[in-house]
Amino acid sequence: MPRCIDWRDGAVVLVDQTALPGEERWLRLTEPDAVVDAIRRLAVRGAPAIGVAGALGVALAARADGDVAAVSAAAARLRSARPTAANLARGVDRALSRLTAGPDAVLAEALTVLAEEVDSSLAIGERGADLLGSLLPGRDGLRLLTHCNTGWLAAVEWGTALGVVAVLHERGRVERVYAGETRPLLQGARLTAYELASLGIDHRVVVDAAAPSLIARGLVHAVVVGADRIAANGDVANKVGTYPLALAAARAGVPFVVAAPESTVDLRTGTGFEIEIEERDPAEVSTASPAYNPAFDVTPHDLVTAIVTERRTVRPSEGDSP
Amino acid sequence: MPRCIDWRDGAVVLVDQTALPGEERWLRLTEPDAVVDAIRRLAVRGAPAIGVAGALGVALAARADGDVAAVSAAAARLRSARPTAANLARGVDRALSRLTAGPDAVLAEALTVLAEEVDSSLAIGERGADLLGSLLPGRDGLRLLTHCNTGWLAAVEWGTALGVVAVLHERGRVERVYAGETRPLLQGARLTAYELASLGIDHRVVVDAAAPSLIARGLVHAVVVGADRIAANGDVANKVGTYPLALAAARAGVPFVVAAPESTVDLRTGTGFEIEIEERDPAEVSTASPAYNPAFDVTPHDLVTAIVTERRTVRPSEGDSP
Repeated sequence: MPRCIDWRDGAVVLVDQTALPGEERWLRLTEPDAVVDAIRRLAVRGAPAIGVAGALGVALAARADGDVAAVSAAAARLRSARPTAANLARGVDRALSRLTAGPDAVLAEALTVLAEEVDSSLAIGERGADLLGSLLPGRDGLRLLTHCNTGWLAAVEWGTALGVVAVLHERGRVERVYAGETRPLLQGARLTAYELASLGIDHRVVVDAAAPSLIARGLVHAVVVGADRIAANGDVANKVGTYPLALAAARAGVPFVVAAPESTVDLRTGTGFEIEIEERDPAEVSTASPAYNPAFDVTPHDLVTAIVTERRTVRPSEGDSP
Repeated sequence: MPRCIDWRDGAVVLVDQTALPGEERWLRLTEPDAVVDAIRRLAVRGAPAIGVAGALGVALAARADGDVAAVSAAAARLRSARPTAANLARGVDRALSRLTAGPDAVLAEALTVLAEEVDSSLAIGERGADLLGSLLPGRDGLRLLTHCNTGWLAAVEWGTALGVVAVLHERGRVERVYAGETRPLLQGARLTAYELASLGIDHRVVVDAAAPSLIARGLVHAVVVGADRIAANGDVANKVGTYPLALAAARAGVPFVVAAPESTVDLRTGTGFEIEIEERDPAEVSTASPAYNPAFDVTPHDLVTAIVTERRTVRPSEGDSP
């Protein structure tokens, strides 16, 4: 199973996601500021992956220079590479907290951050695969539909929704995956298709508008997507285009499964109505005409067959709430 | 109200749709073979518009040359500019049928073809506008959602779904129109946005994946779309991405109105299940990954509030069938 970021022979090794899918360019970084640069220019992206990058960046700094002030300064530069990313700050701080115990302890903590992300991701994948096994008993040759990018490029290894797909593939259950291209930024067409190809999974990219009719036509056995935020009542905010998949799945009687880490569940948010929808630059959609570009949509809990995290399975459409 | 094609001072005048939306280039054609070329390279497109182009092309030939053989040869070249377009052959043949009565009679028949398309389009627009007026009584400042391209660029003047929008706009009832960009060929972003701008209607282009959530969030009062084929039971085949709009409209209790000419109704097709879905070149979706590119989807009749043609209004969701 590929990892988008790892520690190898004293260096941080990561795939440059800005070159994908045209070129698979692996970077070997030995200086903390090279990691700062990689985070800043999105060569590494996805909350779990940049948390690991931050922690490993601190390990590089600690090994290069025993001076506490110098390592702390490097940690500050790493933390501010993407100032609003909570996982990045957490990864940096965890590695930095071991500095007084020496550079090996810092590296060990960074590798623990990495291992925890991998474990969490695999746990989500296995739980989701078990669930789909029980929801679709005896069905081999599964045709799955997903949206946006949720695989090893974002989640270090395995992934969330794509982790479920990857585990089902390892169990020999997957016939084909349809991936919505995910306009306007095309994360599905660019990144998910690349991940699926790297795993050797048969796949087809479809325009987002076509995905609901694939479900209606019986071409899809289950929909598996990630989540950006899950409200206390089980409503799910995710990349715009998720809601129409849930509508089509409910009408067709096809399972609609959300795979996401526990950190996505926000019990202070009562319902999806309370989730503010981020509006992004209209120029991402069109530079020729006025445009409106909401980045997320909300899928009401009654359309959600199950939410799978690394710890539990919740069934919102049956009245369960997270 | 703009027309994409017209007869002016002895010439065919049309807007070159291959240059839109970047440039509004009007062509003045005085030779039938210039019309052949315009049809062939899609400078004029849309079934009604190319029917008119064919008829006017025959009129140009008849005025230039009294010789029956020469005019018939020009008519054959016009007809074969797009060999599978039924409207083109019909327009050419209607104009040609008046040849023995002289060039003025040929031109008069071609102008009748044009006038009939304009009348039909306006009748659809007025009927649709009346219907939405009665479905949304007392509601001003309508926010409408449409998909693909259905306006005066395809239908000479007014349009089908966009004809409804245009008539409502003339009545002062429209606040804003959301237009799905319509991947993969972006007819919404390129052509519908241009038409709306030309009519002075406030509009926003959205990615197709976002449109259903706009309906769920109460930003849309009605959905108005065209149709490629309507089955005997009221199921509607239209540009892929129509079905998710119907699902979202039904859940939100928002009218979902189909505006299309009578020629779209195909009573030999019993239900939408029988409609073969055209698959287009996957390279339209992605050249980097394998893709699947269905051009149409089918909206089941129970989700269709009304079908409006130039002659009647049918209510499939109430059990009516066309």
